[in-house]
Amino acid sequence: MEMKIAERIDRLGTETAFAVSAEAAVRAATGAKVYPFHLGDINLPTPQNIVDAAMKAIRDGKTGYCPNGGIPALREALAADVSASHGVTYGMENVAIQPGGKPVIGKFILALMNPGDEVLYPNPGYPIYESQIEFHGGTAVPYSYREGKDNFVIDVDAIERSITPRTRLLIVNDLQNPMGAEATAEERARLAELAVRHDLYVLLDEAYFELRFEGTSASLVREPGMQERSVLLYTFSKKFAMTGWRLGAAIAPKPVADVIAKLNVNDESCSNHFVQYGALAGLQGSMDGPRAICAALKERRDVCVDLLNRIPGVRCYRPSATFYLFPNVTGLMARLGLDDYEEFRRLILTETGVSFCSRLHFGRPLKGEEERYIRFAYSGIDVDQIREGLEKLRAFVASRIG
Amino acid sequence: MEMKIAERIDRLGTETAFAVSAEAAVRAATGAKVYPFHLGDINLPTPQNIVDAAMKAIRDGKTGYCPNGGIPALREALAADVSASHGVTYGMENVAIQPGGKPVIGKFILALMNPGDEVLYPNPGYPIYESQIEFHGGTAVPYSYREGKDNFVIDVDAIERSITPRTRLLIVNDLQNPMGAEATAEERARLAELAVRHDLYVLLDEAYFELRFEGTSASLVREPGMQERSVLLYTFSKKFAMTGWRLGAAIAPKPVADVIAKLNVNDESCSNHFVQYGALAGLQGSMDGPRAICAALKERRDVCVDLLNRIPGVRCYRPSATFYLFPNVTGLMARLGLDDYEEFRRLILTETGVSFCSRLHFGRPLKGEEERYIRFAYSGIDVDQIREGLEKLRAFVASRIG
Repeated sequence: MEMKIAERIDRLGTETAFAVSAEAAVRAATGAKVYPFHLGDINLPTPQNIVDAAMKAIRDGKTGYCPNGGIPALREALAADVSASHGVTYGMENVAIQPGGKPVIGKFILALMNPGDEVLYPNPGYPIYESQIEFHGGTAVPYSYREGKDNFVIDVDAIERSITPRTRLLIVNDLQNPMGAEATAEERARLAELAVRHDLYVLLDEAYFELRFEGTSASLVREPGMQERSVLLYTFSKKFAMTGWRLGAAIAPKPVADVIAKLNVNDESCSNHFVQYGALAGLQGSMDGPRAICAALKERRDVCVDLLNRIPGVRCYRPSATFYLFPNVTGLMARLGLDDYEEFRRLILTETGVSFCSRLHFGRPLKGEEERYIRFAYSGIDVDQIREGLEKLRAFVASRIG
Repeated sequence: MEMKIAERIDRLGTETAFAVSAEAAVRAATGAKVYPFHLGDINLPTPQNIVDAAMKAIRDGKTGYCPNGGIPALREALAADVSASHGVTYGMENVAIQPGGKPVIGKFILALMNPGDEVLYPNPGYPIYESQIEFHGGTAVPYSYREGKDNFVIDVDAIERSITPRTRLLIVNDLQNPMGAEATAEERARLAELAVRHDLYVLLDEAYFELRFEGTSASLVREPGMQERSVLLYTFSKKFAMTGWRLGAAIAPKPVADVIAKLNVNDESCSNHFVQYGALAGLQGSMDGPRAICAALKERRDVCVDLLNRIPGVRCYRPSATFYLFPNVTGLMARLGLDDYEEFRRLILTETGVSFCSRLHFGRPLKGEEERYIRFAYSGIDVDQIREGLEKLRAFVASRIG
């Protein structure tokens, strides 16, 4: 016999990027060289003060359950930290600690979306938005970005045109994966005005808010009327190189934070207890660790952008934040005589070992898309390997198109 | 403005036991003595070999993401371990590692229950079953236990009478929280026969399978036709005193394990990476740690049962497993002239500091219930405190009813 799976699972999406990882792993297992630009993991160590604090917490017996919404000290420290970086005021009652940033996506939707509601989400964007909206019975309505002068810009006009009486939620990922896009002050003002005018609730996914190399991040939550209608997705994963520790938070108006913590009671009970002491040390201790992480990533960005732009038919911005690049490869694919993303990706992987994701891994392509993009993550590959890999890519392209 | 919460949240339950913890904490904060019998947490240290292996994994850089369903080594080791203890054969493809045992409950329901399906679940029982069934649109159909010679016994006749053409899932918690009940060979055979005959899928919550003091646990999954229709809930929390580490697993036929891992992709990404190396050491290393945990708990059980049975109007079994007691206090409440559970619980807390949960914290009471029960957890309180607290309780009762 085979167990019959529930119908809702038909609507469940996934991160197809993992399939790219699996392919790369298969190749690596044969002894072939792989240059891993496909996954947004970080190959830098977690700062030692965080490790030490977590180990001390284990020794101190912080191995039992803790409150569902997190230990009070961490909720308080995170509220203070985000208040300072965002220019708004949060208290610990606004913070629900989560086992990662990702759980905030599903919990935001469970807490605030009714079946049949329309939800605006970025596409290309993190594929879990689309998956969770549809899984829980909503209608996923994509909005996109267009190429601007120095970086991608949100197509706010398209968002406005997509709003209907059924539109209830808006998902904003600023700074953005996979594009490295960052909302300008004008974009933030317009988004806030739209959200307030149409009474939209906003998931503000700020996973990369503090992972930047120049300038300062500014949050949509600071715009008039936004704090009271927004859920912030916070994660310790990127700033502190803690992806595998699984710790993040939802930051929201108290009634919503309470609902999210009640979802935690039902799902995870609580987040790992002693990891929260590590994160607390991260927030309150020296910022040398996060600074070193950003410095390493900035060097990689510059090498990666410079080399990509030297390849004919490739055009790549230099985003000030995130660890992603989203080069336009329309020209390159045309010169190689390829129209299919997967064919292109596999050709490059096979011929050069350079492994990356394409636009296809970030939501269902939209009607009328003509430009072709791929995504390079430089968080999991060292500078010398970036150089070596992209040199091979350049040589391969030269050999093919002369 | 206030954000409007989605309608489904009206159907979301919680663990009301946390409210008892909060009350006890308030009392303790005033300097008053509290004897904590209310929460199933463990105040014993995690075995050192597990701590050491987790710390080594951090030093070895196991701080990035790992596969959604867990690291292969742990999945393989757990499959081997459960195969040996259960007398069936599982492979790593059957194992999806989770951040705790609890996440298996919701994922089982999401994976296998369609809205409108009826789900049989134990009541009194772990309150999250009822909550998750109703939250995801099912109909929660309770079944109960009755008092047997040496322990509570499942009312299998009542289960059979409750089955309708809409019944799709059966939740079995063996060994059981809050009752400490354990299915007999005959009960297991009858449950399996019912499940096969009515084509029910089974969540077999075995969180306490290896937390026992005499005898050997036997699993329902070994009965004919059961492995192919069951999802096992496994947790590292109890056997290894790792509640706050948050690690467990779903063990299921491969297609279901795959769906559950796909739910992980959407929700938690993965479970904490280095914690999995700790758990691996737990499974493969010395069993001195788990043995010491069981020895400590057995001593507590005996002291607790003996003292409870000395209180007039209290009748308590001596279960061979779990760390719960579910004394019948019908006589005591009657002699104190109390009918209301909460009034009784608060009186005892205020007068003696003895803090416990009642039947009310384990699902909505069923029609026609006449006997009164409370739950004592002895996992979070040392023997001397058990003695002191229960002596106070006995003295208080004596002072009231002579």
